[in-house]
Amino acid sequence: MQKIDGGITAPKGFSVSSCAAGIKYKDREDMILIRSEELCTCGGVFTSNVVKAAPVIWDRDIISEGKGVRAVVVNSGIANACTGQEGLDICSATASAAAGALGIGEKEVLVGSTGVIGMQLPMDRIRSGIEKMAGTLDVSRESANKAVRAIMTTDTVPKESAYTFDLYGTTATIAGMCKGSGMIHPNMCTMLAFMATDAAIEKELLQKAVREIADESFNMISVDGDTSTNDTFVVMANGMSGAPAITAEDEGYKAFYEALRAVCLELARMMAGDGEGATRRIEMTVSGMDTLEHARILARSVICSSLTKAAVFGADANFGRILCALGYAGVDFDPNAVKLYFENADDPSDKMLIYNDGDPVPFDEEKATELLKKPVVLIHAVFAAGSCEATAFGCDLTYDYVTINADYRS
Amino acid sequence: MQKIDGGITAPKGFSVSSCAAGIKYKDREDMILIRSEELCTCGGVFTSNVVKAAPVIWDRDIISEGKGVRAVVVNSGIANACTGQEGLDICSATASAAAGALGIGEKEVLVGSTGVIGMQLPMDRIRSGIEKMAGTLDVSRESANKAVRAIMTTDTVPKESAYTFDLYGTTATIAGMCKGSGMIHPNMCTMLAFMATDAAIEKELLQKAVREIADESFNMISVDGDTSTNDTFVVMANGMSGAPAITAEDEGYKAFYEALRAVCLELARMMAGDGEGATRRIEMTVSGMDTLEHARILARSVICSSLTKAAVFGADANFGRILCALGYAGVDFDPNAVKLYFENADDPSDKMLIYNDGDPVPFDEEKATELLKKPVVLIHAVFAAGSCEATAFGCDLTYDYVTINADYRS
Repeated sequence: MQKIDGGITAPKGFSVSSCAAGIKYKDREDMILIRSEELCTCGGVFTSNVVKAAPVIWDRDIISEGKGVRAVVVNSGIANACTGQEGLDICSATASAAAGALGIGEKEVLVGSTGVIGMQLPMDRIRSGIEKMAGTLDVSRESANKAVRAIMTTDTVPKESAYTFDLYGTTATIAGMCKGSGMIHPNMCTMLAFMATDAAIEKELLQKAVREIADESFNMISVDGDTSTNDTFVVMANGMSGAPAITAEDEGYKAFYEALRAVCLELARMMAGDGEGATRRIEMTVSGMDTLEHARILARSVICSSLTKAAVFGADANFGRILCALGYAGVDFDPNAVKLYFENADDPSDKMLIYNDGDPVPFDEEKATELLKKPVVLIHAVFAAGSCEATAFGCDLTYDYVTINADYRS
Repeated sequence: MQKIDGGITAPKGFSVSSCAAGIKYKDREDMILIRSEELCTCGGVFTSNVVKAAPVIWDRDIISEGKGVRAVVVNSGIANACTGQEGLDICSATASAAAGALGIGEKEVLVGSTGVIGMQLPMDRIRSGIEKMAGTLDVSRESANKAVRAIMTTDTVPKESAYTFDLYGTTATIAGMCKGSGMIHPNMCTMLAFMATDAAIEKELLQKAVREIADESFNMISVDGDTSTNDTFVVMANGMSGAPAITAEDEGYKAFYEALRAVCLELARMMAGDGEGATRRIEMTVSGMDTLEHARILARSVICSSLTKAAVFGADANFGRILCALGYAGVDFDPNAVKLYFENADDPSDKMLIYNDGDPVPFDEEKATELLKKPVVLIHAVFAAGSCEATAFGCDLTYDYVTINADYRS
């Protein structure tokens, strides 16, 4: 497995284009089209919010029908959520326009939207955007990067990741692009993540990998069940690498799984670190738990604690807030059998015990502040309840978060 | 039932004093002593956090033993949480010092603490504080008000409420004092609420009233299970009004219940409005739900949504965030059978429909902004699933919240 510099067009047979459709922004691109030469097997997971945006309903149906996908149309600016029947009609009209322009089936087109909730998309602009993009599809590195930028909302950095890996003796490629910020309270930001691979894989196996890896990566930037109306994570596999198809949980599946996992963890870390207004990333690891689910709940509880986040912003070693957030997570544990550490992201052997089995530990405040001022802050809670471990990803809470969210619509 | 201007000393037989013990602050009072002439029946509810502060463990034991209470010692500055066996020893030493100074039993003294987690209380200063306060107990309005101020941490206003009510033909009084801020994420602020009444009531009935009213008032400023290590709500009834004791759920119980409820709702609203950095209070009402529990979960989910809070701060009528927070609350509902309103706190008949059964409603932005700029912002979600209703209390999210919490310890 090897990391490469590439975007969504790195795997064979995927092309992309983007344009300024004028959906909301005046002077920037806000729409993209992804195209695969061959029909793709698809896996996907979507928001668990009761209120689901129209594109989520459209995509979920297509993926569960399982007939394959050849293109994706995504816009930023307007989320097409809370938009009633008109919103659903806009999804099928969008897919139909793309299908017409590309000569494929309407049900072979996924759609995705991110932006303001409760506004209708201007269908005429969507349609002319698609016309424009259908003629300018290409496979260049630059186009892939432009596409990531076009779907950003409050993101400050474009997020892409790509790996090659050996699949039964042939080199295959997997690449992902995503947008997502607002990770301070990840519940309501929209995450859109699209991955492309030229591996071939049976759809049940693909769906299994997608679901498991989402739980370990993207869902660990997020509170339990707290997801936006639009969250979408889709993997498209077109098989054009030439490697044999993955049809069992063998070494080929394992290689594919590890490459997909690497892409997703990298993107998850990027999203956490690019939380709205964030100045540093926080990684909270819980180990020694009885079940994986408990470890995940505890780690997420700390990552979502506003008081812990604000303390990290202030580089204030207020470990009581961490313990408190563990305590209200809803998992029973013995507070007299927990150790808390700050760890050094640049040197795994350098860790600092701050709370030891019920007692506060006198620690070097200067050293603690130094660790809390690093771009990545590692906190580790070690329980004595078992051997399960999980890591959650977040960021600090800053003035800029409030600025961004006090007037997002305007 | 009549609201009166009074503090914890308004009911007969309760006196109070406060002092600057030098626990953490240099130039302000940080310790109080409440004393009842007669033995009090006691009801109480405490934090559900797995990590419980030492005073919570002490008080819970005393109240569940049910032998009655004559005094309470409270300090601010240090929370006595995550302090191991030494912290527990400090509770009994504090109770013992107060018992000695007042000539009562050690197990008749409750203790309470709020402030920084993970530091030990200086027992010598606690002891000399108690000595000082035991000699200056009095029943004046001013002393009651000074006492509320002494237990404030980041609170900006002292919070007291008192009512008289008719109890079997005799006038009884109930009064409450509390501290609590940080209500933007109520999970980790400490709420300490102490109530005194000169009614007499059987302890099982008192406990029932305390539990039910806590769920309707204080627990509605808070996320499910998200409570600080120190949260405490205690009611002491000394029976000195002369009215007959309440021994059944009769009209006397009802009168007592309504008066206690009025005090608690008033204090809950004050705490919500005094959230750290808050500029306005938000009240989220959910009606038309199938169960009370569901209505409460939904209302709390909106009150706890950072994005909704930030939008209210910016007076931005971003109703999608409200709907989204309802959607991820964990309660199943039909998004096509919900109506959302902004209501005018000064005029109940003035309400504005902004979302109607699945469709956004074009609304007057100027009018919406005007409603969102009022000191109390009322949001109402009307479901069609039943007849249960609940209201949750919160506040907006501002720059000042971050300032306060980025460096709370220093």
